[in-house]
Amino acid sequence: MSDAAGAPGPVRVAVLGCGNVGGALVGLLATRAEEIADRTGVGLELAGVAVSDLSRSRQLPFPPDLLTDDAKELVERPDIDIVVELIGGLDPARSLVEAALRAGRPVVTGNKALLADCGVELAALAADNGVDLLYEAAVAGAIPVIRPLRESLAGERISRLMGIVNGTTNYILTSMAEESMDYADALAEAQRLGLAERDPSADVEGDDAAAKASILAGLAFGSDLVAADVYREGITGVRAADVAFADRLGYVVKLLAVAEVVDGGPDISVRVHPAMVPRSHPLASVRGAFNAVFIEGEACGELMLYGRGAGGAPSASAVLGDLIDAARNLRAGSPGPAPKRTASKVRPIGELRSAFYLSLDVVDQPGVLAAVATVFGNHGVSIKAMEQVGLSDEARLIFLTHTARESDVQETLDDLRLLEAVDRVGGVLRVIGPDDGPARADEGAGV
Amino acid sequence: MSDAAGAPGPVRVAVLGCGNVGGALVGLLATRAEEIADRTGVGLELAGVAVSDLSRSRQLPFPPDLLTDDAKELVERPDIDIVVELIGGLDPARSLVEAALRAGRPVVTGNKALLADCGVELAALAADNGVDLLYEAAVAGAIPVIRPLRESLAGERISRLMGIVNGTTNYILTSMAEESMDYADALAEAQRLGLAERDPSADVEGDDAAAKASILAGLAFGSDLVAADVYREGITGVRAADVAFADRLGYVVKLLAVAEVVDGGPDISVRVHPAMVPRSHPLASVRGAFNAVFIEGEACGELMLYGRGAGGAPSASAVLGDLIDAARNLRAGSPGPAPKRTASKVRPIGELRSAFYLSLDVVDQPGVLAAVATVFGNHGVSIKAMEQVGLSDEARLIFLTHTARESDVQETLDDLRLLEAVDRVGGVLRVIGPDDGPARADEGAGV
Repeated sequence: MSDAAGAPGPVRVAVLGCGNVGGALVGLLATRAEEIADRTGVGLELAGVAVSDLSRSRQLPFPPDLLTDDAKELVERPDIDIVVELIGGLDPARSLVEAALRAGRPVVTGNKALLADCGVELAALAADNGVDLLYEAAVAGAIPVIRPLRESLAGERISRLMGIVNGTTNYILTSMAEESMDYADALAEAQRLGLAERDPSADVEGDDAAAKASILAGLAFGSDLVAADVYREGITGVRAADVAFADRLGYVVKLLAVAEVVDGGPDISVRVHPAMVPRSHPLASVRGAFNAVFIEGEACGELMLYGRGAGGAPSASAVLGDLIDAARNLRAGSPGPAPKRTASKVRPIGELRSAFYLSLDVVDQPGVLAAVATVFGNHGVSIKAMEQVGLSDEARLIFLTHTARESDVQETLDDLRLLEAVDRVGGVLRVIGPDDGPARADEGAGV
Repeated sequence: MSDAAGAPGPVRVAVLGCGNVGGALVGLLATRAEEIADRTGVGLELAGVAVSDLSRSRQLPFPPDLLTDDAKELVERPDIDIVVELIGGLDPARSLVEAALRAGRPVVTGNKALLADCGVELAALAADNGVDLLYEAAVAGAIPVIRPLRESLAGERISRLMGIVNGTTNYILTSMAEESMDYADALAEAQRLGLAERDPSADVEGDDAAAKASILAGLAFGSDLVAADVYREGITGVRAADVAFADRLGYVVKLLAVAEVVDGGPDISVRVHPAMVPRSHPLASVRGAFNAVFIEGEACGELMLYGRGAGGAPSASAVLGDLIDAARNLRAGSPGPAPKRTASKVRPIGELRSAFYLSLDVVDQPGVLAAVATVFGNHGVSIKAMEQVGLSDEARLIFLTHTARESDVQETLDDLRLLEAVDRVGGVLRVIGPDDGPARADEGAGV
């Protein structure tokens, strides 16, 4: 990092993984290093690129002798200043990141699976070694979310964070809402466009969003949750009829990652599920593959950070921002701030309260509604609105409940499934109330 | 900052000004210092508060002996570590900030007028003294805009930035659009609600937005523009009929602060004017007193940062984030990054190209349209759509032009004003085209 005369030379960067994001990043480093140095005062030099298969032919924007298939050796090479991990997954990413941190090298990663699984341990290891572990690209791609939470809002009392953090499911739900497609067709289209994997389960079952929710909860509340701790429901049970009904009521269906303080704290809730969001809420206007994180805090009020949640170039942009930051901190001899992590008490999902949208397919015969209503009453779940839609010899009953305890609603659904007249319990959507939206437009000061 | 044993004591903060924002900040510092220290590892201690009038009675959340009316003495007191300037305006804020920086003290300020007038000089003075000059609160209140531009997007090639950065005018325009109010009534309502000053000119004439535009241009493009360099048009000429017509065409009228690279650079354009924004654009959904900054970059794609643009608590939240940052950097012995500023060439407004909305009140008699159309033709301004609305013995002609050179449109308007049949040239709005919006929802990768 410094030449014989003591002037700081460029910071030497090792990039592990040269796929979608890694490829975009090395492209930026190879073609724009001079401009970046000029603008930021930080020289970045690509010093090595680790790939798994050297024999694969590639268009390289850098000298081929920078390529290696020995990532471990690269990470520990004495001329490396910073390590960028873009391999993804747990293994070997974890051991490589650990080796880099132990060697006193700052690490920039976009690996949400790794951070959601062992982010607390890795952050501790980074702190022990006095180096940065930065991961803006791990949540919501190019959108500055991690840094605002870590720095701008460091002193803020955040009460809730709701994110649309999975572009695949948001694309599918947008198609269902705006083009009246059913789930299977919308998924197929997303797959055709390369927006969904052939096996889409990590996205549509909510696992990807759950990993991101755990990372966001760690930043917002210092929680030590891992992905596995996060309650999740995906969008596979959302039907076109649910989306259309939500629309008629003035709502949009979104898969939300929610992290919030419950009843004033210290308990928190971290969860992923589809929800009905009022059309006037800023999250409702987040369409297609875009992402957004909506933050509510005591002093800051409501914030929303919006943009491209994925893709090679946007994610590489986030990695580059971290890389410049890590290089500056390395020069300054002091890592950036790291949020304090503490054991969090998570309120079980059953103990939360929410309004619900529920739809039931029932046999269209007298007495059914009374039987169904009795079940709601038995569990103290109060109905706010009901609508019946005929479906040949069946009927669909759609309910909006008042705010109810989740476990009471789940028990209601369990009992309803036992009723002979109920063929199917369909969409179950939590409703984000008007109270959950931003304050009215006429509140707050001007200018 | 360190006690006798060498352990770091709290960072001692002087706050200049105890109005709306200053009052909210000292409230946070007085009541939440312990919690902030616990979460961020940075102890902040309120060491002094300078006010102009000591005799005014106040509810103080801190010991009264911290109050002083000698700001100059406070800034230079040896026990002060960081100075927060929340007096506003140029004088005495400038000399106090300069004194603090010269004394080697980091400065946090929310003073947009000061930064827009001499931000380049102050940044240079801060750099010379090796200390931070941070000002997140100066643009868009609590919304993290400055830090993302300075850090997350430090390596990004930003092509354009469009901001709704004045809550007063956005509130007025929202009322005109959603409640069909005319400008005067909407302004009166905003004044009644405390969202507009009794003399609203700094807001409605675009001066406030122009100051913020110059600050944003400095961050996005390293430009050295001051507020006075920024072309501005306010909203006083926007009529209810223009807003209603925009709505019928699928647009929303917004006062935009725009900073963009022209024709691939290096020229830039920095300006403030009302514009028609397509309803599908994320900026269109920014309602009431909210603010947002929409950023387009080569790698990051489109980003939008949204939230409360003003108010005591939101602005204090932004100041607090900066304060924690400055305190950390002070501890680390190294200031944060400062954007490089260089002389920018600004393309004159007349040389820009845009589509235009124009409305003319004319005498309703034969031959008028032909005369008007001839004037457009004389200046090579091509009409895309025209509509005539009858107004008793007058008529209103509304035109949408194809993309045209600004100076040609202005010359067209000058000539139209000379026509006897033209009573009034009304709304002139630049049109943000579909090309200027975010990419389509089906673009970009998923997940």
